[in-house]
Amino acid sequence: MKIPVMEIFGPTIQGEGMVIGQKTMFVRTGGCDYSCSWCDSKFTWDGTGKSTAMKAEEIIDSLKEIGEEAFSHITISGGNPALHKGIGELINQCHEQGWKVAIETQGSFWQDWLLDIDDVTISPKPPSSLMKTDFDQLDLFMQNLIDANVSLKVVIFNEEDFTYAEMIHTRYPVVPFYLQVGNDDVLTVDDQALVSSLLKRFEWLIDRSMKSTIMNDAKVLPQLHALIWGNKRGV
Amino acid sequence: MKIPVMEIFGPTIQGEGMVIGQKTMFVRTGGCDYSCSWCDSKFTWDGTGKSTAMKAEEIIDSLKEIGEEAFSHITISGGNPALHKGIGELINQCHEQGWKVAIETQGSFWQDWLLDIDDVTISPKPPSSLMKTDFDQLDLFMQNLIDANVSLKVVIFNEEDFTYAEMIHTRYPVVPFYLQVGNDDVLTVDDQALVSSLLKRFEWLIDRSMKSTIMNDAKVLPQLHALIWGNKRGV
Ligand code: SF4
Ligand code: SF4
Repeated sequence: MKIPVMEIFGPTIQGEGMVIGQKTMFVRTGGCDYSCSWCDSKFTWDGTGKSTAMKAEEIIDSLKEIGEEAFSHITISGGNPALHKGIGELINQCHEQGWKVAIETQGSFWQDWLLDIDDVTISPKPPSSLMKTDFDQLDLFMQNLIDANVSLKVVIFNEEDFTYAEMIHTRYPVVPFYLQVGNDDVLTVDDQALVSSLLKRFEWLIDRSMKSTIMNDAKVLPQLHALIWGNKRGV
Repeated sequence: MKIPVMEIFGPTIQGEGMVIGQKTMFVRTGGCDYSCSWCDSKFTWDGTGKSTAMKAEEIIDSLKEIGEEAFSHITISGGNPALHKGIGELINQCHEQGWKVAIETQGSFWQDWLLDIDDVTISPKPPSSLMKTDFDQLDLFMQNLIDANVSLKVVIFNEEDFTYAEMIHTRYPVVPFYLQVGNDDVLTVDDQALVSSLLKRFEWLIDRSMKSTIMNDAKVLPQLHALIWGNKRGV
């Protein structure tokens, strides 16, 4: 079963969430069932990017060609990678190579292969995305993943998003919880202005989280990628 | 047994290492058996700062007064906190309150209470520190902590430090391993220049680590504190 692949690159570091800093290769799939207002990967679903249909073994070959021997961890990102049944086979083949596999998905579409992933990030989208969370789906995800190495991550742009994050963390209190600064300018090429705006927003998010007793055991993180490389792709 | 305390502050986020982003209170102890050339906490041991001898229960009271209800995690830092036997009692009392406890120490001086810590970071110092690692001590640490939630972290300033880090990671291959960008200007108050220099050095460290197959499963991280607050203390 083929997988629509937008890009394969690395090794680089994972810039976000539960495996922040981890040396990893990226496989980015095309297609998303959402259309978040601030999506930083619109090219995966808005028709401006092109995907190539690839078999699992072709992706493995490509990873080896691009990353040579310098990696042992794969991140499958999107779009929403959970749209693609074929990823199950890719995960198996990665594990055969001795590689670990991480994924991020919004928790809208279940695949049984999610149970085979080493690091699962579920990232429900807050109000500023203009998307609606299907809580029946999300409950099902969190139930199914109860024994997995799973975390929840919510991207925050404003106070309303923060309230949504508090509600999510309260609903699934035992799941490790990450707050992430939103990038509200995914087009600028002025890296220095972007860095200083992102750091200011990060400081706001830290302050806000410090005041919330609901967030006592949360982790608050920036996107390291945006700080280092701005909005550049493929790094 | 009293503990020499330099400062208690928070809640803020942990800016480094295995619990990066974690909401936490800080208890900083005085005194260090090292004198690293680039130490960013020299005031804990060079005579410019003053410590207060405090009992565990006084520290607990102070934490509650400063952090109110808005925390559930304590980071004990230094100096080298492992110099102080009295911290064992502090850990017990934190656990009685339902708080988790993290610590960072260079691995030069063993205390049995290290076995009770929830997140232990051992940070051997590379050549640029001008300190010498006692590998008998470090081997003992890593043996004792084999079942603990422990990680190794090495701060990197140059190529020689990187070679040292490769040697450390190779010596203890199963211990989660973190590379951290060194801050080579712990005095500047020009935050913007510091941020851009730290991000450049971070990019160098990422590039360097991507080329090292020894570092395939490592994590590469900046110090979030320095990026947000520069060299300011108590944040
Ligand atoms: S779920 Fe992710 S990929 Fe899909 S639109 Fe939202 S941000 Fe973009
Ligand atoms: S071990 Fe830590 S506190 Fe002690 S001198 Fe070195 S950097 Fe400073």
